[in-house]
Amino acid sequence: MTSMYDLVIRNADVVTASERFNCDIGVKDGIVVALGRDLVAGRREIDATGLLALPGGIDAHCHLDQPMPDGLKMADDFHSGTRAAVCGGTTTVIPFAAQAKGQSLQAAVDDYHRRADGRAVIDYAFHLIVSDPTPEVLERELPELISAGYTSFKIYMTYDDLKLSDREILEVMDVARRNQALVMVHAENSDCIAWLTDKLTEAGKHAPKYHAASRPAVVEREATHRAIAFSELVDVPILIVHVSGEDAIEQIEWAQRRGLNIYAETCPQYLYLTAGDLGHEDGYHGAKCVCSPPPRDASSQKAVWSALKRGVFSVFSSDHAPFSYNDPQGKKPGGNEVSFEHIPNGIPGIETRLPLLFDGVSHGTLSLNKFVELTSLNPAKLYGLYPRKGTIAVGADADIVLWDPNKHVTISNDALHHNVDYTPYEGRTVQGWPKHCLSRGELLVDSGRYLEPEAGRGRFLAAGKPQFVDL
Amino acid sequence: MTSMYDLVIRNADVVTASERFNCDIGVKDGIVVALGRDLVAGRREIDATGLLALPGGIDAHCHLDQPMPDGLKMADDFHSGTRAAVCGGTTTVIPFAAQAKGQSLQAAVDDYHRRADGRAVIDYAFHLIVSDPTPEVLERELPELISAGYTSFKIYMTYDDLKLSDREILEVMDVARRNQALVMVHAENSDCIAWLTDKLTEAGKHAPKYHAASRPAVVEREATHRAIAFSELVDVPILIVHVSGEDAIEQIEWAQRRGLNIYAETCPQYLYLTAGDLGHEDGYHGAKCVCSPPPRDASSQKAVWSALKRGVFSVFSSDHAPFSYNDPQGKKPGGNEVSFEHIPNGIPGIETRLPLLFDGVSHGTLSLNKFVELTSLNPAKLYGLYPRKGTIAVGADADIVLWDPNKHVTISNDALHHNVDYTPYEGRTVQGWPKHCLSRGELLVDSGRYLEPEAGRGRFLAAGKPQFVDL
Amino acid sequence: MTSMYDLVIRNADVVTASERFNCDIGVKDGIVVALGRDLVAGRREIDATGLLALPGGIDAHCHLDQPMPDGLKMADDFHSGTRAAVCGGTTTVIPFAAQAKGQSLQAAVDDYHRRADGRAVIDYAFHLIVSDPTPEVLERELPELISAGYTSFKIYMTYDDLKLSDREILEVMDVARRNQALVMVHAENSDCIAWLTDKLTEAGKHAPKYHAASRPAVVEREATHRAIAFSELVDVPILIVHVSGEDAIEQIEWAQRRGLNIYAETCPQYLYLTAGDLGHEDGYHGAKCVCSPPPRDASSQKAVWSALKRGVFSVFSSDHAPFSYNDPQGKKPGGNEVSFEHIPNGIPGIETRLPLLFDGVSHGTLSLNKFVELTSLNPAKLYGLYPRKGTIAVGADADIVLWDPNKHVTISNDALHHNVDYTPYEGRTVQGWPKHCLSRGELLVDSGRYLEPEAGRGRFLAAGKPQFVDL
Amino acid sequence: MTSMYDLVIRNADVVTASERFNCDIGVKDGIVVALGRDLVAGRREIDATGLLALPGGIDAHCHLDQPMPDGLKMADDFHSGTRAAVCGGTTTVIPFAAQAKGQSLQAAVDDYHRRADGRAVIDYAFHLIVSDPTPEVLERELPELISAGYTSFKIYMTYDDLKLSDREILEVMDVARRNQALVMVHAENSDCIAWLTDKLTEAGKHAPKYHAASRPAVVEREATHRAIAFSELVDVPILIVHVSGEDAIEQIEWAQRRGLNIYAETCPQYLYLTAGDLGHEDGYHGAKCVCSPPPRDASSQKAVWSALKRGVFSVFSSDHAPFSYNDPQGKKPGGNEVSFEHIPNGIPGIETRLPLLFDGVSHGTLSLNKFVELTSLNPAKLYGLYPRKGTIAVGADADIVLWDPNKHVTISNDALHHNVDYTPYEGRTVQGWPKHCLSRGELLVDSGRYLEPEAGRGRFLAAGKPQFVDL
Repeated sequence: MTSMYDLVIRNADVVTASERFNCDIGVKDGIVVALGRDLVAGRREIDATGLLALPGGIDAHCHLDQPMPDGLKMADDFHSGTRAAVCGGTTTVIPFAAQAKGQSLQAAVDDYHRRADGRAVIDYAFHLIVSDPTPEVLERELPELISAGYTSFKIYMTYDDLKLSDREILEVMDVARRNQALVMVHAENSDCIAWLTDKLTEAGKHAPKYHAASRPAVVEREATHRAIAFSELVDVPILIVHVSGEDAIEQIEWAQRRGLNIYAETCPQYLYLTAGDLGHEDGYHGAKCVCSPPPRDASSQKAVWSALKRGVFSVFSSDHAPFSYNDPQGKKPGGNEVSFEHIPNGIPGIETRLPLLFDGVSHGTLSLNKFVELTSLNPAKLYGLYPRKGTIAVGADADIVLWDPNKHVTISNDALHHNVDYTPYEGRTVQGWPKHCLSRGELLVDSGRYLEPEAGRGRFLAAGKPQFVDL
Repeated sequence: MTSMYDLVIRNADVVTASERFNCDIGVKDGIVVALGRDLVAGRREIDATGLLALPGGIDAHCHLDQPMPDGLKMADDFHSGTRAAVCGGTTTVIPFAAQAKGQSLQAAVDDYHRRADGRAVIDYAFHLIVSDPTPEVLERELPELISAGYTSFKIYMTYDDLKLSDREILEVMDVARRNQALVMVHAENSDCIAWLTDKLTEAGKHAPKYHAASRPAVVEREATHRAIAFSELVDVPILIVHVSGEDAIEQIEWAQRRGLNIYAETCPQYLYLTAGDLGHEDGYHGAKCVCSPPPRDASSQKAVWSALKRGVFSVFSSDHAPFSYNDPQGKKPGGNEVSFEHIPNGIPGIETRLPLLFDGVSHGTLSLNKFVELTSLNPAKLYGLYPRKGTIAVGADADIVLWDPNKHVTISNDALHHNVDYTPYEGRTVQGWPKHCLSRGELLVDSGRYLEPEAGRGRFLAAGKPQFVDL
Repeated sequence: MTSMYDLVIRNADVVTASERFNCDIGVKDGIVVALGRDLVAGRREIDATGLLALPGGIDAHCHLDQPMPDGLKMADDFHSGTRAAVCGGTTTVIPFAAQAKGQSLQAAVDDYHRRADGRAVIDYAFHLIVSDPTPEVLERELPELISAGYTSFKIYMTYDDLKLSDREILEVMDVARRNQALVMVHAENSDCIAWLTDKLTEAGKHAPKYHAASRPAVVEREATHRAIAFSELVDVPILIVHVSGEDAIEQIEWAQRRGLNIYAETCPQYLYLTAGDLGHEDGYHGAKCVCSPPPRDASSQKAVWSALKRGVFSVFSSDHAPFSYNDPQGKKPGGNEVSFEHIPNGIPGIETRLPLLFDGVSHGTLSLNKFVELTSLNPAKLYGLYPRKGTIAVGADADIVLWDPNKHVTISNDALHHNVDYTPYEGRTVQGWPKHCLSRGELLVDSGRYLEPEAGRGRFLAAGKPQFVDL
Repeated sequence: MTSMYDLVIRNADVVTASERFNCDIGVKDGIVVALGRDLVAGRREIDATGLLALPGGIDAHCHLDQPMPDGLKMADDFHSGTRAAVCGGTTTVIPFAAQAKGQSLQAAVDDYHRRADGRAVIDYAFHLIVSDPTPEVLERELPELISAGYTSFKIYMTYDDLKLSDREILEVMDVARRNQALVMVHAENSDCIAWLTDKLTEAGKHAPKYHAASRPAVVEREATHRAIAFSELVDVPILIVHVSGEDAIEQIEWAQRRGLNIYAETCPQYLYLTAGDLGHEDGYHGAKCVCSPPPRDASSQKAVWSALKRGVFSVFSSDHAPFSYNDPQGKKPGGNEVSFEHIPNGIPGIETRLPLLFDGVSHGTLSLNKFVELTSLNPAKLYGLYPRKGTIAVGADADIVLWDPNKHVTISNDALHHNVDYTPYEGRTVQGWPKHCLSRGELLVDSGRYLEPEAGRGRFLAAGKPQFVDL
C-alpha cells in the first residue's frame, strides 16, 4: 500500500504570520494535506529538525525580461530570475507585464506570457503596468484582464515613457475601484526630477551620486501625498511601492491613521544602502546602486526598520531590476562621460531579499511572524493568491522553505544565481539562509544546492481579487 | 482497533490570527494532534459545516469572587463566572489574586486558589494585584511568584485601598523588568477624581451620572501619559487596561510610534455604552453602567473601534465585575440617597464579550483575523499561555469554539449564565454567537446548550514569561 | 504762527499689533509726526474719545476691474472698489495685474495702471499674476518688475486659462528666490476638479451646490501639500491664499512646525459661510456664494478661527471678486439651465472684511492686537509696504481708522458702497464698525459718511522687498 | 522757560514687539510723553544714532536673597542682583517671595519686602511661591495678596521642601482661576528623581554629571503633561517655567494646538549649555552648571531656538540662582566627597540673559521684534505690569535700553556685576550689548559704565491681573 503522503517533513518548526508550532507536514500532489504529530511515513521524508518551516517567499515586485526602451535588455529572464529567486527562498514571483505607450494591454500580456512560457522554475503571476490608459484600456481591456486573473496594476508618476497625468491616475484608480483591483503607485514627482536634473546637468554634475540629488526625499513625499489624496478622492485602496524613507513613511502613516487604505511596500536597498553608496570616490562604481527612489541616509534606514516593525508596511519586495555593470546593456558603458540620468535604473536583489530581512529577525529588530507576514502572507492576500500561496496550512500549495536561522553567510555575487555581474551587498554577512526549498512539494534547493529543475515547471497563477489585510 | 483520535471535527473553517483554511481537526487527550484532509474517523465526531472554528476566547481581565472591602461580595464565583464565560465562547479566564494592604502576596494567592479550587469549569490563570509593595514583596515574593507561574500583575493609580505612589509604581515596574513579567496599569489620576468628587458632592450632585463627571477623559489621559513615562524610564513593557476613549488612545499611539512597548486593552463597554447610559432620567438605573473609567461618547466609541482595527489595542477583555442591581450587596441599595461614589464599581460582561466584538466583524468594521488576535492569540502570548492556548494548531489544547457567524441573537439577561441580575446590553441584537464550545476537547456547550460539566474540571495554568507581540 | 500739525487726533486709544496706549496723534503732510500727551493744537482736530485708533486695513487680496476671459467684466473698478474699501476701514488695496497667456507681463502691468489711474481714492500696490512664464518672463520681465516695485506674484494650480504646470511653478518660485519676491499660490488640483466636474455633469448635476462637490477639501489639501513641497525644494517662502479649512490648515501647520516658511491667508467667507450656503432650496440663489475654494462646514469655520488665533494665518483678506447676481455679466444669467462651472467665480467682500473679523474680537475669539496684525501690519510687511503702511507710528502714513468697537450694524447691501447688487452677509449683525477713516491724514469717511473725495487721489505704491514676519 | 521734556533721546530706532520706527523720545517725570520728529530740546539729551531703543528687559524669573533651607545663603541680594540686571539691559525684576512650609504667605511677603527695601536700583514686583496651601492660604491669604498686587505664584512638582501633591496643585490652580492670577509651574516628577538618585547613589555615582542623569527629559515631560492636564481640568491658564528641551516642548505645543492656554518660559542655559557641561573630566567644575531641569543636548538646544522663534515660548527669563563656586555657601565645598544631590541648585545669569538671546538676533535665528516680545512685552502683560512696563509708548515708564547691535563682547565674569564668582558663559563671544540703560528716565548705565545709583531707588510694583497674550 502506497503512503497517503508523497512527502512528509518531520519535526518542522512551522511559522506563519501569527503562529509557531511544531509538527510533521504531510504533502500530497503538491498540496499540504496534513499537519500533525507522528504522521505515517511518506514516500519521501525530510528531517526539519533545527530548521524553521516558512511559507515560501513571494516577491511581489521584480522585473524579469521586461521589454525596455532604447534597446536595453534585462540581464535576467524568467529562467535565471526564478532560479535566483528560489535559491533565496522565494517560491512565487509577480513581475510586470508592461504596456508601452500606444500598445494594447492585452498585447503586452500576451507578449509577457511568451517570455515566461517554458522558462520559469517556480510559479508566477503578473502585475500589469498601465502607461497608456486610453478609453479602450479603461473601459474594456482592464476590466477583462482583471476578470482573467490580472488583478493588480502599477502606474508611474515619473519616467517620460510611463508616467500618467493626474487625470489619468484618477481614471485608472476608478477602474480599480469598480472592479476591485489593486493599484500600485511609483510615487515621485516627475517635474521636480526633471527640473533638478536640468540644474545638475547645467552645472556639469554627471556622476552617479547626482542621481540621488536629483530625486530628494521631498520629491517622493509630494507624490506620495498626492497619490494618497487621489486614493481618498476615488475611495479605493492603493499600494505605494518601494518607499524609501521617513518622509514618505510619515505621509503614509498619517493616511493610515485617518483610516485610509494606503498600503505600502519597501525593499532591502532602503534598509542597507544610503545615498553615500552612489558616491564612492572611485567614481563610476556608484552606478551599481542607482535605483529610484534612491537610498537615503542612516536615519531613514532606521525609520524603515521601525515602520516594518509596527506595520506601516504590508509588503517587503526586492524591486529586482537586473542590469549588469560591465555589459554593453549595463550600468557602466558610458562611464563618467555620460550623465547619471542615462544609467539603467534599478538594482538586483531577488535572491538576497529574504536573507537581508531575516538578518533583522536574527538581531531582534523584527519578529519572525512579521517576517512571514511581510514576505509571504500579505503579498499572497493583497495580490489574490491566498490561501493557495502565502501560508503553510492544509490545502495550500506545498511551497515551503526550510530555513536555517543560525547559518552565517557572507554575500558574494559568485554564489548567487542571477545573471547580473554584481550585488550591491557584496561582502555583507547575514545570519539565516534557506536550506531546503520546495515548490508544490518538489525539492528545488537541497541543502543550499540548486537542483536544476526543468525550466517551465513553474506555472502561471491567475490572481483572484485582493484580500485587504489589516492596516 | 480504537481510533487515533478521541474527536474529529469535520470540515472546519479554521481561523487563526492570520489564516483561514478548511480542514478536519483531530483531537487526542484534549490536544489538537492533527489538522488535515479526510482524517480517519474519530471516536466522536462533530460536523462544523457552515461554522467557524475559532480558538476559544481568553478573557484576560475579569473579576471573580475577588475579596472586596466594606463587606461587599461579588455575584459571580469561579463556578458561575466560568460557566458564563464558556457559554459566551471563552475557554480561559485570568482573574485577579488581589493583595490587600498589609497582606502578603502569597497569602492572597493561596486564598484565591481556595476560591477557585473545585469550582472552575474552564482553565484559568491568575494575575496578581499588587497594592502593598513592601520590600518583602518586591525583593522576595514577586520574584518567587513570577517563577511559580504568576507572571502578570496589575497596579492601580486610583482607589484608596489599592493605589500606589509614583515611587511604588517605579519599584514594581523595575521588578517586572528584572524578572520579565508584565505590569498591567489601571490609569486614572486619584487626586483629580477626589477633587472632582468633593466638588460634586459639595454641590449635592449624587446621581450615578456624576460618576462620569468625576472621572473625565483628561483624568485617564494624564495617568496614561504618566504610566507611559514610567515605562520609558524603567525600560519595561507595560499594558494599559480598559482604555476608554480617544484621549488615552492618542497617548498610547504616540508612545507606540516612539517605539515604546506600550500595550493596551479595551472592553465592550467602550464600544457600546456612553456616559449618557449613566444618566437615564428614571434616575438610579444608570448605576447599572457605572464602571471605571466610565464610558465616554459616540466619538470615543468610534475612536476605540478604529484603534482596535489598526492595532493600537492588543487585547480585548470584558473587565467583568459582577454586582447585581437589586441586591443588598449590589448597585441599587442606597438609591438616590447615596452618592455615586458608593456604587459598586464595574459591570458584568464575561458572556457577551465575544458576541459584542464579533458584531463588528459581521458589519465589516473588524477583520476575522483581528478578532481572533484580540480575543485569544494576543492574551495567550502576553500572559504566557501560548502555544498551549490562543490558537488552533498542532500541540495546542483543543479549546475550540465553533461559531455561527450568521446567527442573530437579541441579548437578554434571562438567557445569560452569570449570577448578575442584569446586563447593560439588554435588548441589543448582535450577529454571531458561539454554537459549540470545547475545552480540552470536551464539549461544554452543545448547540448553545450548557452541558453542566463538573465543577472543578477547569485547571490552573502556571503562566510562562510574556511573549511580546508586535506593536 | 501756524500749527506744527495739520491734524491732531485727540485722546486716541492707539492699537498696534502688539501695543495699546492712549495719546494724541499729530499729523503733518499726511504723515504721523508725533504721538504724545497734550500735543499743541492742530489746524484741524478730531476727538477720538471712546474710539480705537487702528492702522488702516490693507486688503491684500482683491480683484478690481481685472480683465476677464469670455467677455466677462467685473462690477467694481478702482473707483467703486476703493470707495467701498475705505468705507469698510481699508486704506490700501493690492489687486492683481493679471497676465493673459501670450501677453507680456509688462503689458499687463501697463494696462492695469491705465485702469487704476484717475480712479482710486486710496493708495494701492499691485500683485502680478503670472500665467505664462516664458523664458522672457522668467529671465527678464519678472526681475525687472520686482525691481520696479512689483514684488509679489500669484500663481494658479487650477483654471485652464491661468494654471501653471509643476515645472512652471518651480521656475517661478526660483525667480522669487533669486530676487527676493513673494509667490502667492492658489492651491487646488486642477485635474481632480475637472474629473469631478465631468462626473457631476454626466450625472446631470448642474446646480450651484455642486460647485462645492466638485472641489472638496482633499483637492485643496493635495495642492497645498504640493506647493509646500515645491517651496521646500526651491527653498523660498510662499504664501498660500484663501485657505478654506482644516485639511489645508493641517498641512500648513505641519510645514510651519518643520521650520518651512509657509505663509497663509484666509478670508471672511471661510469664517461665515458653509457649503450649505450654495445649496438653498430656492435654487439658483446659491450662486451668490460660489467662490473657490468653496466654503466648507461648521467644523472648518471653527478650525479657521482657531488657526487665526494661534498664528497659522498671517494675513486676512477679502478675495473680493465683484460679480452681480442680476446682471448680464453676473452670476445668475443662465439660471439652472447652465452648469455650476459657468458661474462667475468669487464673491464681494471688500467693505465687510474688517467688521466681520472684528466681530470675533468683540466676542473674545481674537485679540485686538491679532486683528491689527492680520489686517494691516503683516500684509504691509509681507508685501513691502512697511513701515509706510501697516502701523500707527512716527513716520508712517496717517492711514488711520477710528473704530467704534461698540456699534452694532446689521449688514445690508443697500448700505454698502461697491457696485455689486448683493452681499453674502445680508442681514448678519456684527459689533464694531469704522467711524472715521483717514488716508494720508485726509478724512474720507466722517462718522460713517463717505465724503466723496476726488477720484484719483489714491497713489500707486511701489513695493519693497518682503519683510518676512515670524511664523 | 523750562523744557517740556526732562530728557529727549534723539534719533532713536525704536523697536517694540511688532514695530520698528525712527523718532525722538521725550521723557517727563520718568514717563515717555512723546514720540515724534524734531522734538523740542530736552533738559538733557542723549543721541541714539546707530543704537536700538528697546523697552528695558523684564527678568520674570530670578532668585535674589531668597531664604534657603540648610543655612544656605544666596550670593546676590536686591542690590547686587538689580545692579547686575540693569548692566545687562534689564530694568525690572520679578523675584520670588517664598513661603516656607508652616509659614504664612503674608509673613513671607513681609520678610521679602524687608529684604528688598532700600536695596533695589530698578523696579521690582514679586511672584509668590506657594509651598503650603493650607485652607487659610487658599481661602484668605492668596485672594487678599492677589488683590494687593501679587498676581502670580509659582508651585513646585519636586523638591521635598516645596513640592505640592496633585491635590494641592489643583486647589492652588482653582484659586488662580477664581481670582484671575497666574500659576507658574516647576515641572519635574519628584518620585522619579528620587528613585533615580537613589539608584545612582547606591552605585556610587556622586559626580555633578549625575545630576543630569537623575533628571532625564522624560521626568520633565511627564510633569509637564500632568500640569497641562490639571490646567485643562481646572480650566485656568498656567505658565510652565524653565522648559529645557524638545520633550517638554512637544507636550506644550500639543496643548497649545488643542486650544489650551499653556504658556511657557525658557532660559539661556537651555540655548547654550548641554548635559556635557556638567561632566568635564576635571571633575567638580561641572557643578557650576548644575541647575534643574538640567541642560540637555544639541538637539534640544535647536528645538528651544525653534520654539522661541515660532511662539511656543512666551517668556525668556534667566532663572538667576546665585551661588558662588568657591564659597562655604557655594557649589564646590563638598567636592567629590559629596553627592551631586547636595550641590546648590541653579546658575547665575541675570546680566547675560539679554546679550545671549540677542546673539540669536544677530545671527538671524530670531527676529528683533520677537526678542522684545519675549524679554519685555510678554512678561509685562502676563505679570500685570503692562502698559507701564514692557514697551516704549506714550504713557509708559521710560525704562529704555539703547542697545548697540554691533558690539562684540566676550563674556568674562570679571566684567559682570553680580556677586557670584563665575559665569557658565565665560569666554563666549556675543554680538550685541546694552550701551545706555534708563530706569524711569534716569540713566543708570552710561556707555556701559554703571553709574552707581542710590540703592533703594527701585520701587515695588503692585501687579495687576494678567493680560493673556496670544498663543
